[in-house]
Amino acid sequence: MYRFDEEIDRRGTHSSKWDTLESGFGITAEDGLAMWTADSDYPTAPCVLDAVRRQLDHGLFGYFTDDGPYRAAIRWWMDARHGWRIEPDWILTAQGLGNAIALCLDVWTAPGDRVVIFPPVYHEFAAKVRKAGREAVECPLRRDGDRYELDLDDAQSRLTGRETMLIWCSPQNPSGRIWSADELRAVADFATRNGLILVSDEIHHDFIYPGGTFVPMHVAAPQATDRMVVLTAASKTFNIAGMKTGNLIIPDPGLRAAMAQRLRSIDYSANLLGYKMVTAAYSPEGAAWVDAQIAHLLGNIASFDAAVNAIPGVRSLPLASTYLAWVDFSGTGMTDDEIAARVRDGARIAASPGPGFGTGGARFLRFNLATNRSRVDEAGRRLQAAFADLQ
Amino acid sequence: MYRFDEEIDRRGTHSSKWDTLESGFGITAEDGLAMWTADSDYPTAPCVLDAVRRQLDHGLFGYFTDDGPYRAAIRWWMDARHGWRIEPDWILTAQGLGNAIALCLDVWTAPGDRVVIFPPVYHEFAAKVRKAGREAVECPLRRDGDRYELDLDDAQSRLTGRETMLIWCSPQNPSGRIWSADELRAVADFATRNGLILVSDEIHHDFIYPGGTFVPMHVAAPQATDRMVVLTAASKTFNIAGMKTGNLIIPDPGLRAAMAQRLRSIDYSANLLGYKMVTAAYSPEGAAWVDAQIAHLLGNIASFDAAVNAIPGVRSLPLASTYLAWVDFSGTGMTDDEIAARVRDGARIAASPGPGFGTGGARFLRFNLATNRSRVDEAGRRLQAAFADLQ
Ligand SMILES: Cc1ncc(COP(=O)(O)O)c(C=O)c1O
Ligand SMILES: Cc1ncc(COP(=O)(O)O)c(C=O)c1O
Repeated sequence: MYRFDEEIDRRGTHSSKWDTLESGFGITAEDGLAMWTADSDYPTAPCVLDAVRRQLDHGLFGYFTDDGPYRAAIRWWMDARHGWRIEPDWILTAQGLGNAIALCLDVWTAPGDRVVIFPPVYHEFAAKVRKAGREAVECPLRRDGDRYELDLDDAQSRLTGRETMLIWCSPQNPSGRIWSADELRAVADFATRNGLILVSDEIHHDFIYPGGTFVPMHVAAPQATDRMVVLTAASKTFNIAGMKTGNLIIPDPGLRAAMAQRLRSIDYSANLLGYKMVTAAYSPEGAAWVDAQIAHLLGNIASFDAAVNAIPGVRSLPLASTYLAWVDFSGTGMTDDEIAARVRDGARIAASPGPGFGTGGARFLRFNLATNRSRVDEAGRRLQAAFADLQ
Repeated sequence: MYRFDEEIDRRGTHSSKWDTLESGFGITAEDGLAMWTADSDYPTAPCVLDAVRRQLDHGLFGYFTDDGPYRAAIRWWMDARHGWRIEPDWILTAQGLGNAIALCLDVWTAPGDRVVIFPPVYHEFAAKVRKAGREAVECPLRRDGDRYELDLDDAQSRLTGRETMLIWCSPQNPSGRIWSADELRAVADFATRNGLILVSDEIHHDFIYPGGTFVPMHVAAPQATDRMVVLTAASKTFNIAGMKTGNLIIPDPGLRAAMAQRLRSIDYSANLLGYKMVTAAYSPEGAAWVDAQIAHLLGNIASFDAAVNAIPGVRSLPLASTYLAWVDFSGTGMTDDEIAARVRDGARIAASPGPGFGTGGARFLRFNLATNRSRVDEAGRRLQAAFADLQ
């Protein structure tokens, strides 16, 4: 019924993940496995494809009005899937969350400001802060066995008073850490105490594995509404990142007016098919597909973890969320370069190097498991072979 | 083979043009005719639909790399259709030309600067200038019978030294005026003499009727390259404005770097289907469809002009370009309100009010003829009936 296990050849389709194996990693396209960029190797949900098909049958792609159904669908999803009641007019649309983060920096920080992040974390947080001429303040998470913990006392000690924003990742990419309501409140209080705009990037919120409970920042810490910007998107969940449509959900009228003004000043508006696809995705049919995807990913994670955890000195941290395995190679005693070389040249796998995620990323690699099972199994076998001398 | 004459019901499809008849004009949707917003009522070209279908069959909409074919297609089109040789790296992508104009204002002007425009002209030029906190300097075209003429001496007399940009429309919306190479050179020299960035909006360049020759600004006035930004798009030509994909073509490396930096700083990138549709559009198949569209529009224009020119005191100016009839009702002796009321309440037609296009627009209405023939014929009949007392 769904096609998660179909082996789809994405080479030659302009895929960022697959069509840069040679240029980006020096891995021959012929038998390389692309496990880096965070998109999926299976088609989007049937209901999303149906939305594209309906527009194709109509044949017209002119000027679009009335995003009522789009807002209603986002609202329904946040409530039905996350227990978060939002109002339709809290939603502003960005060109995906990379654009949303850049816009937040543009609107609420000034050149030279310091922006607080909690590595290891999505590499683009620091990259966008720097690209905007702001300074990233790394407040590292503390590793405690298989878990990462917040250390807000340590974080406080790193501030200088020039901080104006905090960019939070929930659930956390790359570790898959889900934050409790208490932890979220502590982060919100930290932001309040230090006068920081709190940007909560919740793009991975739909990938929650059994036993875990995701809590939206706004549900956990409504008292920080006046400084809160929540980012969500259907792009990871439904594999439609190329359509460049993401949500800025801003409950506070003042903050929202500031962002709306910025969007208006550059005459921003979303694209028609992005709108239609998101509207179709955030539906009961979309939810059923996501549930099936979660089941598929659980199997992938189990297969991958079993294979790599059998390699002495290698540990794939248990994933509570995301389809991104965060693998610690430090027990091998190798350097980052040696690890990368074995994975790249030995296993012919393109993975995301841990150091790119900031402090705490050394000796890690991140592997994207959103693919068909047999590719995951193959990756496990290749990694075992590449490190066979350690057996 | 093509579907220009199919009567497609766009009501209830979120069409800006059709689904705002009641809210925007007070015209009942049931029998209103929407002839305002500049998109078309027929499907886009088969080759563009095929590109969407291919992506739909693939089913994946993830991260996209390598816009080489997209750039090559734009380059081919500019050369094959307009005799303009561009380099692939001159092309930057905006979210359509509304966004492109706003970005130009953002990058090359400062609040309080004055921006030169030549009304009657696309109403959004002045609107965007004002929205950005700049001041629009109207340098009106001179009406000479059925033609509009430049008056650069008059324009010069309106400058104060605080002007930093000139936004040019070529061909001109709403009059459809095509500018000669000599006129374009005069405009470029005027920009040079006054130190203005020259933004040439050439979005209507593909609608050129027999006898007319369109000359790109960069072909006419290469000497002004160091201040020139050319805007083009497939959106009007192929009826894909909803996909929000337009070209900023900037031959000068310094100007280009400034815009590229602005786009990077907000993490701008185009959407996957926009890319694919534009790439497919700018092809020999796309060109054949455009030629057929031109033939269809010529018939529409002939029918419309014959009908409205039979009304005493009403004159549809001969169109050299665009599918937007520019109709002078001044000979009726009526006020703008009377004219609008007759067209709206009598003919039940939503047209664009002339005064919105700035000085020179009074007593005009603009009618969008990019629809099937029978709607155009019906519009002609309704207008004749609405002004029947003048016969
Ligand atoms: C935490 C996080 N935020 C944002 C993004 C990028 O989102 P988009 O594709 O909408 O720009 C990613 C992609 O990996 C991500 O992991
Ligand atoms: C001269 C001109 N420029 C720009 C636009 C808007 O372009 P886009 O839809 O790409 O924002 C129009 C639309 O009518 C136009 O006539």
